[in-house]
Amino acid sequence: MIDYKKILGDYTPDYEESLRLKCIENGIIKKLNDIISSRNIDAEPVSVGSYSKGTNLKNSDLDIFIVFSKKYPKNEMESIGLSLGHYILENGVEKYAEHPYVSGYIENVKIDIVPAYKIEPGQRIVSTVDRTPLHTKYVIENTDENLRNDIRLLKIFMKANNVYGSEVSKAGFSGYLCEILVINFKSFDAVIKYFSKLKGRLIIPENSGKKFQEPVVIVDPVDPTRNAGAAVSLENLSRMKIASKLFLLNKNESFFYPREISPRYHKRGTCIYIITLKRPDIIDDIIYPQVFRFERQIFNIADRYGFMPVSSEINVDNNIEILIELQRDVLPDVSKHAGPPVDSDESINFINVWKDRALRGPYIERDRLYVDSETRIKSFYDALNLELKKMDIGKNLNKLKDGIKIIKYNNSDFNVVKKFFSKDIFH
Amino acid sequence: MIDYKKILGDYTPDYEESLRLKCIENGIIKKLNDIISSRNIDAEPVSVGSYSKGTNLKNSDLDIFIVFSKKYPKNEMESIGLSLGHYILENGVEKYAEHPYVSGYIENVKIDIVPAYKIEPGQRIVSTVDRTPLHTKYVIENTDENLRNDIRLLKIFMKANNVYGSEVSKAGFSGYLCEILVINFKSFDAVIKYFSKLKGRLIIPENSGKKFQEPVVIVDPVDPTRNAGAAVSLENLSRMKIASKLFLLNKNESFFYPREISPRYHKRGTCIYIITLKRPDIIDDIIYPQVFRFERQIFNIADRYGFMPVSSEINVDNNIEILIELQRDVLPDVSKHAGPPVDSDESINFINVWKDRALRGPYIERDRLYVDSETRIKSFYDALNLELKKMDIGKNLNKLKDGIKIIKYNNSDFNVVKKFFSKDIFH
Repeated sequence: MIDYKKILGDYTPDYEESLRLKCIENGIIKKLNDIISSRNIDAEPVSVGSYSKGTNLKNSDLDIFIVFSKKYPKNEMESIGLSLGHYILENGVEKYAEHPYVSGYIENVKIDIVPAYKIEPGQRIVSTVDRTPLHTKYVIENTDENLRNDIRLLKIFMKANNVYGSEVSKAGFSGYLCEILVINFKSFDAVIKYFSKLKGRLIIPENSGKKFQEPVVIVDPVDPTRNAGAAVSLENLSRMKIASKLFLLNKNESFFYPREISPRYHKRGTCIYIITLKRPDIIDDIIYPQVFRFERQIFNIADRYGFMPVSSEINVDNNIEILIELQRDVLPDVSKHAGPPVDSDESINFINVWKDRALRGPYIERDRLYVDSETRIKSFYDALNLELKKMDIGKNLNKLKDGIKIIKYNNSDFNVVKKFFSKDIFH
Repeated sequence: MIDYKKILGDYTPDYEESLRLKCIENGIIKKLNDIISSRNIDAEPVSVGSYSKGTNLKNSDLDIFIVFSKKYPKNEMESIGLSLGHYILENGVEKYAEHPYVSGYIENVKIDIVPAYKIEPGQRIVSTVDRTPLHTKYVIENTDENLRNDIRLLKIFMKANNVYGSEVSKAGFSGYLCEILVINFKSFDAVIKYFSKLKGRLIIPENSGKKFQEPVVIVDPVDPTRNAGAAVSLENLSRMKIASKLFLLNKNESFFYPREISPRYHKRGTCIYIITLKRPDIIDDIIYPQVFRFERQIFNIADRYGFMPVSSEINVDNNIEILIELQRDVLPDVSKHAGPPVDSDESINFINVWKDRALRGPYIERDRLYVDSETRIKSFYDALNLELKKMDIGKNLNKLKDGIKIIKYNNSDFNVVKKFFSKDIFH
């Protein structure tokens, strides 16, 4: 039998860590309460995030929200919020989600001090962070110690199987989704059983499939107009289904511990290109969608020209690397072009244009004219270079077009190549 | 202005040829009448074919039918028919369409003596040749000298543009179709105008499109249950449309004289294979459908394995040659295989089968499992050899499988290669 206690022991903060977090949290709340009342600000500090809900794993952050009355205009609320943040975090830096906020460290614990508006359930939010305190309240009110441990187990399971994390780069399940799932199904085991049997989309509650079109629909208990699962990709839903099936067939601790996948290099007889450029100094949430789109564009160009793309992969760290695997990188000298149907008014024109230029034809197959003509652009390198000039690859990447390199893979040391050769169900 | 008289002069029999045909025809009919009455046979010799209708071109055959009363059983009718044929044609040989008949030469004119049953319009025929005397009667009764010359012009035009001939190998317009078309539209020019403006199928009369599904529907005036245009291919209909459009744009005598198309060889950067075997001693009508089907099978195999076929061509003379042009003849070392959807009951089985054998994966894309595995059969040569073993390539070709050669084209001297490089609108 699998020992969930042991697994939880490996991942849950020990007494010392819990105590340290408690002290830091209390200190911050107290300091904020003091200054808020002395400055007569209509706001209240609230601890949110997994620690405050009791669903945190080891080395979690602390998220402290300052919840302002709606009477403050946005810019005033933000500037007060930032000044309070800097007051708490001496070396804090300003970051930007939908509101600006301050992020820093106390005793090696990462702390975010985030301003938000106070709303009640069902009220219209100004920015998405305004909902966070309601999420915290919902989870605290609907869980006990057992459920919280099952939420932790689900997070651990999802992390180990690489489907955890709501960042754009991950497109996985967020901590809040883990919380809703366990609350909804009442245990970790029931959640796994549900995934293992699930066919098609995940829809909770079951009647919300029409309202939302994403692969994962989990209506936010504190805001029925919002799909809390909108960011989860179809791939990650699929991975979670397969992970759950495999786990139920072989209940094994290894499903809770990350597996190191080492690349298995082998001869593929294909043409692998790496398109690479420097990563601009822009947050993931903005850069990833542009990279995903660029990857799709390259794939489509390869397909349209006839280079027969098979696979692609991306990697973003200090550099952006896009790998594309082609079945060929040189086209035949001749290509067959479909002309108009013989019934078309264009048919005679097509014949006149091509009769002296064609390598073969014009000729007829069934009810259409064709011609074999010389292929204008034969290599993938030329095709991509040509298309790059006219392509829109996103606001931030467009500026870096001149620095793009197209490199034919040749055992060189690219991270995206490692990732490509490490691909398995969960990677 | 185009000189139709001159064209007719070039193609129509001169006085001497007409006289010779008349003498031969009269001689045969007389001889047959004599022996039929002396032997007391209930049958009648009838001259049919283009000569009898006055729509013949130079060097036409003579077709003499012996029309038997329906009281004769089939084998008796056939044996009497053959004996009469041999009586007329001393060196005649027996051939076989739906009935056996005798074919031979008199003064260098090819003569067929064909037995058939006498039927009246609307009566059920026993074999398709039984209709021929009715066709002859219909054409004679519905044409005058002008229309007959226009029929000749249409035949000449169709021959020159390579859409004439009802043989399976041609799939073109028969002489009888030319006759119906000119009778229906009242002149050669009107027929050409009709084709030049025609969109979609050719349907005469216009309301018969539901009854027959072929590209050319020309209901037989002597038998409304028969589509006289059934054998015409979509390609030949298309060619005739384009030829008519081009002719109307540039009324030029060259449309009535065969054009020599010399092959234009050029580098194509593709892989061309010739599959060749000895032609069995079987008539075209039987061998061509098997060759067309074999061609299609080879194309489909190439497509299914991923060799990306572009074009194919056949040539049948003493040998059967099938040309297939591929974009590649070697596959990558690795191929990407789609497995079951993750929701399928087969998904775990697929993972178990592949997890230790795959070169990469199993991995997930969207809602499906994939695996990259080693390509088992890499060359077209191996693939086709393997498939040939299990393929049914037709009753007569199956026997010759062992003699099939698969040759990579390399400037060698195959007729099908010449044909391939000569391809244009009308070839």
